[in-house]
Amino acid sequence: MKKDTVLSNNNPVTILVVGAGAVGGFYGCRLSQAGAEVSTVHRSDYEAVRQKGITIDSIDGPAHFHPQQVLRRVADYQGFPDYLLVSLKSLPELDIASLIAPAVGPDTTVILLQNGIQIEEPVQQRFPSNEIISGLAFICVNRIGPGMIRHLCYGRLMIGCYPEGISPAVRQLSALFERSNVPCHTSAFIVTERWRKLLWNAPYNPISVLAGGVDTQQIMAQPDMVSLIRGVMEEVLAVALSLGHNLTQEAVEKNLDDTHKMKPYRTSMLLDYESGRPMEVEAILGNIIKAAEKKAVRVVRLQTLYSLLKLKAKQPFSAN
Amino acid sequence: MKKDTVLSNNNPVTILVVGAGAVGGFYGCRLSQAGAEVSTVHRSDYEAVRQKGITIDSIDGPAHFHPQQVLRRVADYQGFPDYLLVSLKSLPELDIASLIAPAVGPDTTVILLQNGIQIEEPVQQRFPSNEIISGLAFICVNRIGPGMIRHLCYGRLMIGCYPEGISPAVRQLSALFERSNVPCHTSAFIVTERWRKLLWNAPYNPISVLAGGVDTQQIMAQPDMVSLIRGVMEEVLAVALSLGHNLTQEAVEKNLDDTHKMKPYRTSMLLDYESGRPMEVEAILGNIIKAAEKKAVRVVRLQTLYSLLKLKAKQPFSAN
Repeated sequence: MKKDTVLSNNNPVTILVVGAGAVGGFYGCRLSQAGAEVSTVHRSDYEAVRQKGITIDSIDGPAHFHPQQVLRRVADYQGFPDYLLVSLKSLPELDIASLIAPAVGPDTTVILLQNGIQIEEPVQQRFPSNEIISGLAFICVNRIGPGMIRHLCYGRLMIGCYPEGISPAVRQLSALFERSNVPCHTSAFIVTERWRKLLWNAPYNPISVLAGGVDTQQIMAQPDMVSLIRGVMEEVLAVALSLGHNLTQEAVEKNLDDTHKMKPYRTSMLLDYESGRPMEVEAILGNIIKAAEKKAVRVVRLQTLYSLLKLKAKQPFSAN
Repeated sequence: MKKDTVLSNNNPVTILVVGAGAVGGFYGCRLSQAGAEVSTVHRSDYEAVRQKGITIDSIDGPAHFHPQQVLRRVADYQGFPDYLLVSLKSLPELDIASLIAPAVGPDTTVILLQNGIQIEEPVQQRFPSNEIISGLAFICVNRIGPGMIRHLCYGRLMIGCYPEGISPAVRQLSALFERSNVPCHTSAFIVTERWRKLLWNAPYNPISVLAGGVDTQQIMAQPDMVSLIRGVMEEVLAVALSLGHNLTQEAVEKNLDDTHKMKPYRTSMLLDYESGRPMEVEAILGNIIKAAEKKAVRVVRLQTLYSLLKLKAKQPFSAN
């Protein structure tokens, strides 16, 4: 295994972060602190990062790092990285497989650190011989300026092989993150974990936008809204169960309890909407509905939110 | 019957319009043109109407009328009117029965020209010996300034006795409207007609607000939105059927067909929301859901829209 070789020799692990916004910038910085040789690809922030690197105003203290290579395009990367970490949003118009292709060598492990479900398939189909690590980030982090990131809370990761298992590469990556104080759990059933996270994302993200820009506490303060959210979570659960994932009603109740206890939180979809950025409507809702249709599972609430959100996405924030 | 006497002698019919906004002002003007003695109650527009009367910029030509009595409060009305026409919005915080009580004499017929369902019960309970006419207005009309109304399209009415039947008063009122070119149909089952109108209002009003301020054509252009609307209409239909109303799936399809053919239309709920006025959330959604719960009819889509809309109603227009 190439990864064991990397671990055992003294060459630093090389990592290319594609989509070095708030999430990619944050974890890229942590991996760099752990000793990895981290390079980054930027669109709008390229000039700023090339000059000043990436600065993080974190609850864990300030941090700064200058990527090994700062790039405008994936094709500009010299050589092939050990790991190529994708932290781009999951949008239908974004062909991730084509985008990363120039830097995916025969031994490159692709890490997909993105929201939603069914995001791995196109990458696996394009690179059938490469290892794919699927990952979930539980973090509140915002880009506050070019190369400037604010880390508000949380930060833990959950990673595993796609479609299942735990490999030496997963263990190496987890060790790297843990070395820089990022709690990184591994799961042999990472797709199940994606569904577990979706239990939360599927109701709260759309509702925060549709109900007029509200945080989690405003939502939870309305009793029939809690019923709606439980209903949406149960629909997601039913789809996950139909696909053979090992989740239970307990996961629904735990999500509701945790949200009651959580500080008021504005979802990433709401922040996207209010900033005029595209929302992850398909990765978070559309793909569940497609899966539900294949398995003939009734998801009336999800379909209602999905139809409303698609139309809402076409209306500019300022005009509604 | 008092109403037959009124019809047969030469004294004009007296009518007090409570809630003389766009709808009340428009029909008050038409009744005045038909020879009735129309008085009006105003809050904010009192001073303007006292001085200049009510002016209507109508598709049928310009119109103007000066009410017989222009009043600030119902209690200021001299005597009791033959008809007391309520064209206020249906809001839970508005106790219509108490509001109109000072002008409801033993022979006064109360006309409720309002949206929604189950709006008649409190008035009937308060005035068990008075005749109640329930009415539906199919009209696009806006208040464009103090005492200034713009009539954009339609205008027909549907009236009938509450809870059912057609009385001499209903026929007299219909004749008065027809005399001033307002098509006014009568129905012996006006509550069923309320449900028929609700088939349209229950989906389009909330969706126009929740999807970010869209008109009917923007809604109908998204195919899965048509499915959602059909689903909501079918839920309303199921509740209406459970209550014994004679409506069919045909009414659903006719509503969809008509809306496809209609010019782009912004719902009254959307106009209310964008103007910071309260929306008729309970009359249009809440009361259907209450009825559904009593009859154990599943209305998941209606409940979803209702929960979202109640929370949305608390968020100011400018901030979402």
